[in-house]
Amino acid sequence: MTGGFVDPRLSINQATIKYADLATALRVTAEAGVQAIGLWREPVQEVGLATAAKMLTDSGLRFTTHCRSGFFTMPEGPARRASIDDNKVAIDEAATLAAAGAEGSTAILVLVAGGLPEGDRDVVGARSRVRDAIGELAPYAKSAGVTLAIEPLHPMYASDRCVVSTLGQALDIAADFEPEVVGATVDTFHIWWDPDVLNQIARAGREGRIATYQVCDWKTPLPADVLLSRHYPGDGVIDFASLTRAVIETGYDRDIEVEIFNEEIWATDPLTAVQRTAAGFAGAVSPHLGSALPR
Amino acid sequence: MTGGFVDPRLSINQATIKYADLATALRVTAEAGVQAIGLWREPVQEVGLATAAKMLTDSGLRFTTHCRSGFFTMPEGPARRASIDDNKVAIDEAATLAAAGAEGSTAILVLVAGGLPEGDRDVVGARSRVRDAIGELAPYAKSAGVTLAIEPLHPMYASDRCVVSTLGQALDIAADFEPEVVGATVDTFHIWWDPDVLNQIARAGREGRIATYQVCDWKTPLPADVLLSRHYPGDGVIDFASLTRAVIETGYDRDIEVEIFNEEIWATDPLTAVQRTAAGFAGAVSPHLGSALPR
Repeated sequence: MTGGFVDPRLSINQATIKYADLATALRVTAEAGVQAIGLWREPVQEVGLATAAKMLTDSGLRFTTHCRSGFFTMPEGPARRASIDDNKVAIDEAATLAAAGAEGSTAILVLVAGGLPEGDRDVVGARSRVRDAIGELAPYAKSAGVTLAIEPLHPMYASDRCVVSTLGQALDIAADFEPEVVGATVDTFHIWWDPDVLNQIARAGREGRIATYQVCDWKTPLPADVLLSRHYPGDGVIDFASLTRAVIETGYDRDIEVEIFNEEIWATDPLTAVQRTAAGFAGAVSPHLGSALPR
Repeated sequence: MTGGFVDPRLSINQATIKYADLATALRVTAEAGVQAIGLWREPVQEVGLATAAKMLTDSGLRFTTHCRSGFFTMPEGPARRASIDDNKVAIDEAATLAAAGAEGSTAILVLVAGGLPEGDRDVVGARSRVRDAIGELAPYAKSAGVTLAIEPLHPMYASDRCVVSTLGQALDIAADFEPEVVGATVDTFHIWWDPDVLNQIARAGREGRIATYQVCDWKTPLPADVLLSRHYPGDGVIDFASLTRAVIETGYDRDIEVEIFNEEIWATDPLTAVQRTAAGFAGAVSPHLGSALPR
């Protein structure tokens, strides 16, 4: 049905082909006819930032996001200082890669807040430390020209991975900062269930906070490791029509990433995985991008 | 530390000792010094309602909730009619059991909305059918003197079990009905992560909608079957202090159930499981009930 169509706005998040190194990820993404990619820190650091930037330039791909940083819910002390310092390195990486990508690249760093510190039950306190960390990082990000994209994660990760669970909560944190400096990651997998999701997407648009729109699908039963429960768009129960239209109606006109953590997909040949991702995107997401495309 | 103290407001939800039949459940609950119990439909139906009511009376225990009914997200048709009819049976059961329990028993039927119908992605439509079903059941519940307690379930169950995911959402549905007829189940496990949870508990209190307060704990990693990820109070990361105080500050003065689904706890001797539940409750919840106890 999709006839090999590859949406020009599709971006492959590197996590979708986790076991591919950077060279392979860039090669299969371009080979599949996809125009953009979001990268992860580890494979970039594996080859070194300067080399990664050159490889990215050579690939001709747009760069959409750098994944990921954050993890700053711990109280003040050496671990927190190390996290802030590492977040600054990630900001620099994002700026360098965005400059190396093809025209239309964006300097966006995805932030996952982190969970409750070991032995701690004070989720309210952990959230306030997220705000404080972003306050510390915002001037650095601004001078680097990088947008920090707070990612609300599904509430099933609230205790051990991310104390920011809803888009509304991410926007409340972002509200203290300039929209160019602090925005939100709108990922269907994490927020589709939220009864207020369409309102919050509209609000995110009004407030200029949709740093990146990411899509993948939700399906049950969840696998034993719930981190790996993400699926190709169209393979699950998420209504991409209403969510995508809500995002597009805000005027969001940039690339859309597919980021999937799934053992089976990781075990697939990476070119095949990218092609399947493109087909899923074409079938489930592309039909709802119309308002932003020429008629 | 808890020295065998059994809180007079503790109620054992029968699911905590799932493999005990009704006779055993009643016996071990009373034997442990617990004064109240919440029952499940299947073990009640196993002995028959009249017999179950007599057994409950003989136990001397208060009856706190009947679990559970709902599951009415399907579109109009025979399956929906069968669900509505079965919900009426459950209402009758709750009324009978409440009348058979000791003084202070409450006629509360817990409602789990149900998930997306097979092949359906329209969560908004499913939610509107929940409201419609409650509208159909409310007059029946009112004449039976039963409160329908809408239970928001954790968002990880949103697609396959319950399209009502937050307390605010449950209260929005309940708002169309009288508080004596439609309220909410406030279960720490399902809502602890919600950044708006304390506000919504206060709202539930103001609106007279806290039908029942239930406690159990959250801990990661989640087990392979995420339905079975509930723990004794105090064994996980939930802050029972802030949540319990918020509930008590609304004036909630009734029993508090512990409902745990956990394979390891189910494999424990039921009297031991009840005793451990009582100890966990005494340590994690009782210290925060002060405002409602005589000084």
